Amino acid sequence: MCGPMRGAVMGALVYEALAETPEQAVAMAAAGEVEFDPCHHHHAVGPMAGVVSPSMPVWIVENETFGNLAYCTQNEGLGKVLRYGAFGPEVIKRLKWMEAELYPALEAALAVSGPIDLRSMIAQALHMGDEGHNRNKAGTSLLIRILAPALVKAVDDPAVVERVLRFIDGNDHFFLNLTMPAMKAMLEPAEGIPGSSVVTVMARNGTDFGVRVGGLGDHWFVAPAGQPEGLWLPGFTAEDANPDIGDSTITETGGIGGFALAGAPAIVQFVGGTPRDALNATLEMYEITVGEHSAFTLPALDFRGMPVGIDVRRVMETGLLPRLNTGIAHKEPGVGMVGAGLLTAPKACFEQAFAELAKLC
Amino acid sequence: MCGPMRGAVMGALVYEALAETPEQAVAMAAAGEVEFDPCHHHHAVGPMAGVVSPSMPVWIVENETFGNLAYCTQNEGLGKVLRYGAFGPEVIKRLKWMEAELYPALEAALAVSGPIDLRSMIAQALHMGDEGHNRNKAGTSLLIRILAPALVKAVDDPAVVERVLRFIDGNDHFFLNLTMPAMKAMLEPAEGIPGSSVVTVMARNGTDFGVRVGGLGDHWFVAPAGQPEGLWLPGFTAEDANPDIGDSTITETGGIGGFALAGAPAIVQFVGGTPRDALNATLEMYEITVGEHSAFTLPALDFRGMPVGIDVRRVMETGLLPRLNTGIAHKEPGVGMVGAGLLTAPKACFEQAFAELAKLC
Repeated sequence: MCGPMRGAVMGALVYEALAETPEQAVAMAAAGEVEFDPCHHHHAVGPMAGVVSPSMPVWIVENETFGNLAYCTQNEGLGKVLRYGAFGPEVIKRLKWMEAELYPALEAALAVSGPIDLRSMIAQALHMGDEGHNRNKAGTSLLIRILAPALVKAVDDPAVVERVLRFIDGNDHFFLNLTMPAMKAMLEPAEGIPGSSVVTVMARNGTDFGVRVGGLGDHWFVAPAGQPEGLWLPGFTAEDANPDIGDSTITETGGIGGFALAGAPAIVQFVGGTPRDALNATLEMYEITVGEHSAFTLPALDFRGMPVGIDVRRVMETGLLPRLNTGIAHKEPGVGMVGAGLLTAPKACFEQAFAELAKLC
Repeated sequence: MCGPMRGAVMGALVYEALAETPEQAVAMAAAGEVEFDPCHHHHAVGPMAGVVSPSMPVWIVENETFGNLAYCTQNEGLGKVLRYGAFGPEVIKRLKWMEAELYPALEAALAVSGPIDLRSMIAQALHMGDEGHNRNKAGTSLLIRILAPALVKAVDDPAVVERVLRFIDGNDHFFLNLTMPAMKAMLEPAEGIPGSSVVTVMARNGTDFGVRVGGLGDHWFVAPAGQPEGLWLPGFTAEDANPDIGDSTITETGGIGGFALAGAPAIVQFVGGTPRDALNATLEMYEITVGEHSAFTLPALDFRGMPVGIDVRRVMETGLLPRLNTGIAHKEPGVGMVGAGLLTAPKACFEQAFAELAKLC
């Protein structure tokens, strides 16, 4: 288990009061006292380390057409946060506040507002410079517009409402934890379709990169996780970076994130590259996908639908690999975020899947 | 005075309780009992009919570098609103509510938040698909993010906070009435510079189009207002449209709006044209401007600054005219908005100004 995930597990055990100290948490985990399972085995997704422990509240996202549900925790912010492997007292305190104050307030607000139409909100955000993975400034803003009046109506204590609004406003990535389960909910009905060569999951755990394919059951096609090239927070360099990590590649699997860079040129200031690279990334992804989104469109490309549905056969035929953008965690437990950058999915995952597909013919 | 402006004057006189009925208002105005003056003669700007009457609260925008102030009313929304010439009971009721509840709540919130950095907010919105004239969805969203927690803290009655938040959320053009005075505050220091051929004001009153130039004092160079081509609200056609109207061309004068279309491709769904036209509009405006914005940039053009500072000499040399986008009012008083579209400023204004500049040589 890589450093940032070890850090997040240590933090989660302290947060759950199952361990008193991070050191005790390490001993527990090393002794086999903790049961681990991938988020994707529970219809869930988690950014970066992706640790979801029993007390953490989750968003519940429904695919109304197919009736399936997906789950994701609330986003903690950037820097020293659990999902980047930090576990200090400020991390635990924030998680406790999210459980005790943020979540009940959001639950009450959603009871007033009713369910939020995430497809519409994501479609709008994608016309406002977001790509839904590492740029969620517009989505977070649109969410605040819906939540703010509902919070005011639903929560009696104005100090709570103010703290909740300032917390969400303070974190432009807050909406990421809604785009991710939205994509998960959208993609799950594409699982288990006989003969399908369309990728339904791409995920990384900081050590390996795994791919699942619609016609190939629950099997994970696994290869070593890549190393993102990116921009570094002050004081950090490529030396500090853990390999690629997290379930957030569900955004690229669903046709946004790295696949939607053409609509989010300003993101290059966060992940590196140039606006021309961003445009080219999207254009390239049309070469390896089976369709174009009906709901998510690119104004700059004459409202063409985003490239969606990675086809293992096309990846093999073209040699083009899915483009990803990602946050970057420190390789050691306890530090947190060190930057953000770009990379591609490993070719070996698609080679293995292609070999399995060939056996079906 | 054109139809929508007559309608707005009628509404304003009823709103001010100076007339009991719109008919009485017409009689008062026809009898010369009302004094009129352009907004720009009072450091103010008003979208469309642009009527500002004594009881209407205004935003106050300061240019911190030069110390000058600019003013603009709060935006009422779209459809049947005073600035589009409507004056029915619902228009008056809304204006009264804005005076009695919206404005005091905003004033209290601003006392909590402190002054808002509009330059930063506009710069961000321009990276989020706004052009600051007819697309202000991002700016309105960013404003709500600042105002919401401040309103919660500043205003005791949660029902008032909720109404104010829902009113602003219900109108993606709310931020227009902040981009306009921001541009006015930015441009005024460019007035009165000896020999300057840079345009400091473009404005229309629904009959005429007027231009002022930095080195040519307070003189208005005037020509008949153009007719926008655009998209029509259901039930309306080009036959219903009043000629080009309002002070909102201060946005194009300041290098955003029609000059920033390259960053706002989604706007073509509101004003017409294609994303390629939008890109070309901005590229063309570099040909008639003296500089590129330091604060307002275009990610899609490698973060090039917006074209700013229309030079009368370059307009004459190239034959290219400033590109505008605009809302469209019904030509009769009392109806309201009928669409939105695109046009250019009239050449005759620049010919007259150029002739005056030539006399200085």
